[in-house]
Amino acid sequence: MASPAAASVDTASDFIARYDALRAYTEALASPLSPEDQTVQSMADVSPTKWHRAHVTWFFETFLLAEHEQRFAPFQDKYWFLFNSYYEAVGPRYSRPLRGVISRPGAHDVGRYRANVDDRMRDLIAGLDEGALSKVAPTITLGFHHEQQHQELLLMDIKHVLSLNPLEPVYAGRPRATHTPPGPLGWVSYDGGLVEIGHPGGSGFCFDNELPEHQEFLTPYRLADRLITNGEWLDFMADGGYRRAEFWLSDGWGRVQSDGWAAPFYWQQVDGVWFEHTLHGTYPVDPALPVCHVSHYEADAYAAWAGKRLPTEAEWEHAARLHEETPCAADNLGDTAAFHPRAAGEQDGRLRQLFGDCWEWTRSAYLPYPGFHASEGAIGEYNGKFMSGQMVLRGGCAFTPPGHARASYRNFFPPGARWALSGVRLADDNVVA
Amino acid sequence: MASPAAASVDTASDFIARYDALRAYTEALASPLSPEDQTVQSMADVSPTKWHRAHVTWFFETFLLAEHEQRFAPFQDKYWFLFNSYYEAVGPRYSRPLRGVISRPGAHDVGRYRANVDDRMRDLIAGLDEGALSKVAPTITLGFHHEQQHQELLLMDIKHVLSLNPLEPVYAGRPRATHTPPGPLGWVSYDGGLVEIGHPGGSGFCFDNELPEHQEFLTPYRLADRLITNGEWLDFMADGGYRRAEFWLSDGWGRVQSDGWAAPFYWQQVDGVWFEHTLHGTYPVDPALPVCHVSHYEADAYAAWAGKRLPTEAEWEHAARLHEETPCAADNLGDTAAFHPRAAGEQDGRLRQLFGDCWEWTRSAYLPYPGFHASEGAIGEYNGKFMSGQMVLRGGCAFTPPGHARASYRNFFPPGARWALSGVRLADDNVVA
Amino acid sequence: MASPAAASVDTASDFIARYDALRAYTEALASPLSPEDQTVQSMADVSPTKWHRAHVTWFFETFLLAEHEQRFAPFQDKYWFLFNSYYEAVGPRYSRPLRGVISRPGAHDVGRYRANVDDRMRDLIAGLDEGALSKVAPTITLGFHHEQQHQELLLMDIKHVLSLNPLEPVYAGRPRATHTPPGPLGWVSYDGGLVEIGHPGGSGFCFDNELPEHQEFLTPYRLADRLITNGEWLDFMADGGYRRAEFWLSDGWGRVQSDGWAAPFYWQQVDGVWFEHTLHGTYPVDPALPVCHVSHYEADAYAAWAGKRLPTEAEWEHAARLHEETPCAADNLGDTAAFHPRAAGEQDGRLRQLFGDCWEWTRSAYLPYPGFHASEGAIGEYNGKFMSGQMVLRGGCAFTPPGHARASYRNFFPPGARWALSGVRLADDNVVA
Amino acid sequence: MASPAAASVDTASDFIARYDALRAYTEALASPLSPEDQTVQSMADVSPTKWHRAHVTWFFETFLLAEHEQRFAPFQDKYWFLFNSYYEAVGPRYSRPLRGVISRPGAHDVGRYRANVDDRMRDLIAGLDEGALSKVAPTITLGFHHEQQHQELLLMDIKHVLSLNPLEPVYAGRPRATHTPPGPLGWVSYDGGLVEIGHPGGSGFCFDNELPEHQEFLTPYRLADRLITNGEWLDFMADGGYRRAEFWLSDGWGRVQSDGWAAPFYWQQVDGVWFEHTLHGTYPVDPALPVCHVSHYEADAYAAWAGKRLPTEAEWEHAARLHEETPCAADNLGDTAAFHPRAAGEQDGRLRQLFGDCWEWTRSAYLPYPGFHASEGAIGEYNGKFMSGQMVLRGGCAFTPPGHARASYRNFFPPGARWALSGVRLADDNVVA
Repeated sequence: MASPAAASVDTASDFIARYDALRAYTEALASPLSPEDQTVQSMADVSPTKWHRAHVTWFFETFLLAEHEQRFAPFQDKYWFLFNSYYEAVGPRYSRPLRGVISRPGAHDVGRYRANVDDRMRDLIAGLDEGALSKVAPTITLGFHHEQQHQELLLMDIKHVLSLNPLEPVYAGRPRATHTPPGPLGWVSYDGGLVEIGHPGGSGFCFDNELPEHQEFLTPYRLADRLITNGEWLDFMADGGYRRAEFWLSDGWGRVQSDGWAAPFYWQQVDGVWFEHTLHGTYPVDPALPVCHVSHYEADAYAAWAGKRLPTEAEWEHAARLHEETPCAADNLGDTAAFHPRAAGEQDGRLRQLFGDCWEWTRSAYLPYPGFHASEGAIGEYNGKFMSGQMVLRGGCAFTPPGHARASYRNFFPPGARWALSGVRLADDNVVA
Repeated sequence: MASPAAASVDTASDFIARYDALRAYTEALASPLSPEDQTVQSMADVSPTKWHRAHVTWFFETFLLAEHEQRFAPFQDKYWFLFNSYYEAVGPRYSRPLRGVISRPGAHDVGRYRANVDDRMRDLIAGLDEGALSKVAPTITLGFHHEQQHQELLLMDIKHVLSLNPLEPVYAGRPRATHTPPGPLGWVSYDGGLVEIGHPGGSGFCFDNELPEHQEFLTPYRLADRLITNGEWLDFMADGGYRRAEFWLSDGWGRVQSDGWAAPFYWQQVDGVWFEHTLHGTYPVDPALPVCHVSHYEADAYAAWAGKRLPTEAEWEHAARLHEETPCAADNLGDTAAFHPRAAGEQDGRLRQLFGDCWEWTRSAYLPYPGFHASEGAIGEYNGKFMSGQMVLRGGCAFTPPGHARASYRNFFPPGARWALSGVRLADDNVVA
Repeated sequence: MASPAAASVDTASDFIARYDALRAYTEALASPLSPEDQTVQSMADVSPTKWHRAHVTWFFETFLLAEHEQRFAPFQDKYWFLFNSYYEAVGPRYSRPLRGVISRPGAHDVGRYRANVDDRMRDLIAGLDEGALSKVAPTITLGFHHEQQHQELLLMDIKHVLSLNPLEPVYAGRPRATHTPPGPLGWVSYDGGLVEIGHPGGSGFCFDNELPEHQEFLTPYRLADRLITNGEWLDFMADGGYRRAEFWLSDGWGRVQSDGWAAPFYWQQVDGVWFEHTLHGTYPVDPALPVCHVSHYEADAYAAWAGKRLPTEAEWEHAARLHEETPCAADNLGDTAAFHPRAAGEQDGRLRQLFGDCWEWTRSAYLPYPGFHASEGAIGEYNGKFMSGQMVLRGGCAFTPPGHARASYRNFFPPGARWALSGVRLADDNVVA
Repeated sequence: MASPAAASVDTASDFIARYDALRAYTEALASPLSPEDQTVQSMADVSPTKWHRAHVTWFFETFLLAEHEQRFAPFQDKYWFLFNSYYEAVGPRYSRPLRGVISRPGAHDVGRYRANVDDRMRDLIAGLDEGALSKVAPTITLGFHHEQQHQELLLMDIKHVLSLNPLEPVYAGRPRATHTPPGPLGWVSYDGGLVEIGHPGGSGFCFDNELPEHQEFLTPYRLADRLITNGEWLDFMADGGYRRAEFWLSDGWGRVQSDGWAAPFYWQQVDGVWFEHTLHGTYPVDPALPVCHVSHYEADAYAAWAGKRLPTEAEWEHAARLHEETPCAADNLGDTAAFHPRAAGEQDGRLRQLFGDCWEWTRSAYLPYPGFHASEGAIGEYNGKFMSGQMVLRGGCAFTPPGHARASYRNFFPPGARWALSGVRLADDNVVA
């Protein structure tokens, strides 16, 4: 899955250094959280922090140590069962919605598990000759990117856990800035035509779902040059956005009614003022910041209300490829210190907030590319089997670890999901006069 | 939605003749059913027969009589509310899952409602001059195709109702033939490239979701020359098809486990023999006939087991366009007297069972075409708002009324739906040597 | 279960006459209902009319014909399965919540089933000599009382079915009278002490749950001399009865909140006026009539609001025994022509509305009497196995067939049930000065 | 609720000493549990350990400090909301099934809350003169008994939490003894007649639901002289106890089928051997020990299978009153060091295992005694509002703190509850020859 060409240039000590940095980053993310915080599963979609910490460790233990370690024995037999997420081929696994009832191993025990696997992973890598290393490099690299995905999920999940607590706990404090609302939405136009979509291979890692690179035909289109703001969302709400069926997909309207949706996921109205729960605490909604934690249904309804539509993933990727070549001054690439989307920078005729800030809903269902083939073995379950019932999101978010996102990256969630850090970029057909 | 050009050549008496034939066909389909049969709603997806008969009538009353009749008054005020299916713009509507608790109006009363609207429709059409007729022709034509859709649904729904009855009622009796299993699957290859997809306009009706015609790029592919048979499905089952997670989409595997799927929807094993419920009665499964009433998940799993995949809707449509120009000798086009899919005819190097027999699952999610715009007003709710969470099926089925299907026709159901008359045609990448 | 002494005096022709009258009464109750009306099951608690008609027939076929008929063969093998209500000992049975999906046998077919069993029952009875007749008499008599119970249920059930129909169908029309509200609640006092409870045996039928007669000790108490009226219930509502937790049992308060209870079951507010659905149609709530279709939870909350309590079943029965000896002028015994509870008559120092009108909730759980033993065999399932999770109601209601109720009769429903014709009589401790 | 006469003899220092002992006992019970263990809510019926620790503290803060402390301010405003269990009169409360999603306050923070309230409680008590103390004594005493109830629940709840963990954690280790099965069941007979039921007042605490003392009439009966053992339960299972509907209440049989009950709650079969989860670990089922963690439905079915019945609560209490006067040598009163029911001692013609070991299901619904009145104010919600849908259990269990149980004590659970430490004592009618 990782490009062998790219991987082969790394030495064992390169790998170990990257491994250590990766693993330390996970622990740093967990460090503000008490053992109790790390235990809670607040809904079926959420996993406890200590489960994330253990599961990514299980991944290395299962797909690397078990395969390549001499005299392999699992750290703890039952962890095999407890920390398998969804790999049917690896054997039975513990029920996902019950992850929160498992108090043991505790947060400290998970730390011991991590340390043990870390030692063994370093030993394993250090003991491989160049040929052997280049053979396992793709799986190690996959393990890196896998853990990065869970770093992001860890933050989305703990945000939900803390949101339910009447004490309004803060994950990470920081001074609250005031932002200037960006000016009116600008648009960037694209001619389309027969374009290349998917990861081009060559150098750099990608997941199997980004392959193969292939051609798609795009009619002319344009993309909004920034994300929709909270202020714009308040206009939608004020205009009856959540009360007027005509803007909504049928399934979305069903959710509005059954679940009483009337605002983004983490908004709450107190005495007429809308507040937003963030990892920094609960603040009045800032009209200048991007709206976030909206479902695909809401994003689609907003677009309909605005007389526009969501981009397809191919439209987004085609624009992002061009953008990667000449990035915008206002790019938020890779800065996650904020733990929250930031305001759009100055308008400069190019796409702003393309990477980072909010995962951007597309109107594309998550489906295999032409010629897609899942990897062999259990690793093949990584992506392919989820290609049903989900919508593609693009671009990363404020929780995405540095270096994790790219133009061809395909994230996916069910259309009703709201706990992910998702936002809205509009698109439009570009009828050339 | 209907092509104005096409409609304008029809005279009022043409329309009335077609109207009368259409309406009589619905009543003929309902005629074997008792008032009690017509009342039952066996699950939320199913509507009672008498509801179908009333709803299609409501459609004409709402979108034609209410708009164009002089001194319009509804036949019955509350029918407005009771027989609205899903048009939010028309006003509040009766809860779908509760259609089966409404004993009145009874089957006979619905007949009176139909007769009343029929009289008024004939008067309306007869009273229009050519200009006025050409204006309402698209809506009348839409009403025709709408009622045809419900003719098909009426059969799917009553099949489910009768299937639950331990008395094993027969909807339509007919001698049971023995069929010769077709030979091995053949394949028909296509070059792909930049092809035209969608209804070409010009003459003939289409729904808004088939528009606009647009270009898509297809890599070379091939399609199986017939549907998968019950015999082939039994091989899949014998090889653990329903027990081996590796073939299944994750959501599909979830359904296998939660709902205990172990065979197609209407199959039941008695003393080791598989029986199939049909509208003709319950018979031992015939290996020569197409497998039907399988979900998208099952179709996808079968394809994975067979080392193949399902076609995309563009692949299917491209092939069907070519096929429509030179149909196969074994085509089952428009013959619905069987009320059940028929065996594939002789192999002749071309696609068999392409139209009729079984709706064929594609791997395409039901999404808007580039440049799609829903119609204005309540009629705009016909298709667009369902473009979420569903998969496209192509080709019609044994319940489809004659003349209703075409190459660009897009049917859609949720991937777990099984009560529709759906089957499986395989596809494959065609790597040109 | 029936008293053998009593039964033995009846001749075969007595039995046949009673049988014919009973059976005709059931058909008369069903006669205003269309085949569609008779098919619907509007919720799990409700059974379709044609199911009731068939099930009571099945009871005679199963417990009498199958036992005693020469060369017995069931009318239809599968009816055995379809029309068993809950007798595990008789074999598997059709799922109760799915009674409404069975369109066949239709209402007319059920009539044929009834006629067939009627003929065979008459032949059976006529062919028995005195000794044999006295042996089967208890079971025949049980069949009579069983069918009477279903006559009452048939009315409760169809009332619910029709209530859901926006067309507001009327089961039985009759002129709507205006009633004078009764005067203030009066009270009748009882000394209590060691009293006899349960059916005294000797003459007359009783169910096994009324046995054995036994002693209970009662402290002095008093009973309200009539049922609570709609007018009094409106006072309760106006005083926040449905919004103030302090009056409610915890489970009841849970239902108020989860189900949004704010008025009796069949009340609906239109433009500020409360309307009540009855079998005669939908009318403004009449303050003079007894409140009905309230759950045990509501009855209990009303009593708490009024500073009183519900009677125990022993208190009610002790009073009813005395009352049966010298009935009140205002008794509504046995008149069910109204299909709705009637206003209390003139106050005369005695209990009014004791029999008929509304089943009266007691504060007693439905439990076995000391020394209770269920009958042998399948018939033993009649009552005993339901002695859990239900509350006792006493006195019959407007739907109870003439002659069916008595002082020792124990009806029972879950405390949240509202579709039964249940009302409220208050009780109080009587502290003797 | 506490008897004023009894309370008045205690001095402030008596109260403080008892308070300190009580509070220390709670902390001792929690001490083997990690912060993670204390956080988990494994099902809606279960509360997290740290919630129990906080809630009992909230009880003292709410009903004593808030009422009587000078310049009262809550330790933390939102704890008022978070740790209210069910007192509607105190204000809104946090949703019970979501107690497990609240990671903060953590176990350590709860300890700080406890320490703060402890200091203030001691100050409060120490500062009261004799007259003031005698006024608040009943509420303090109620707080003691309330916390004891939660000590018991804490153990029941954590037993469930740990039972779900594949690592099979042990709460408290201890050597596993082998027990000799007791001999055959003996019986102790009682004449019954008009007996006194309920707490006699005078000295000693009781809850309001034990009042008033009143007369009930009992027919002659007998009670088994010990609890049913695991060995006897295995006989029931071997005889198809969980597969034969004829033994079961209808609701119980429904649970057997819907929940797949086939053995007591904490039993699991591994390779043909039954194992039981206990707080000491998971061991093979010991036939000599009492069966425990069975529902009322199972207890009732066992009794039916054995040709016996469960006792009424009055029968149990009448026997226990006599027993308290002359206890049996084999009494297990107040010894909870075992954390599991113990084997019956030597037979001596009297009742064994009457107090402690297992809560014993009765056939009595939990209802108010004649003349019962709930206490005024929020405290009145303690018991009365739960008098619906529950069955009475008697006698305490191995988790009951020393001194907490008594003859008139009424515990109650829904008939399907299995996580409580409940067992079975049989009763029978005693027909005097």
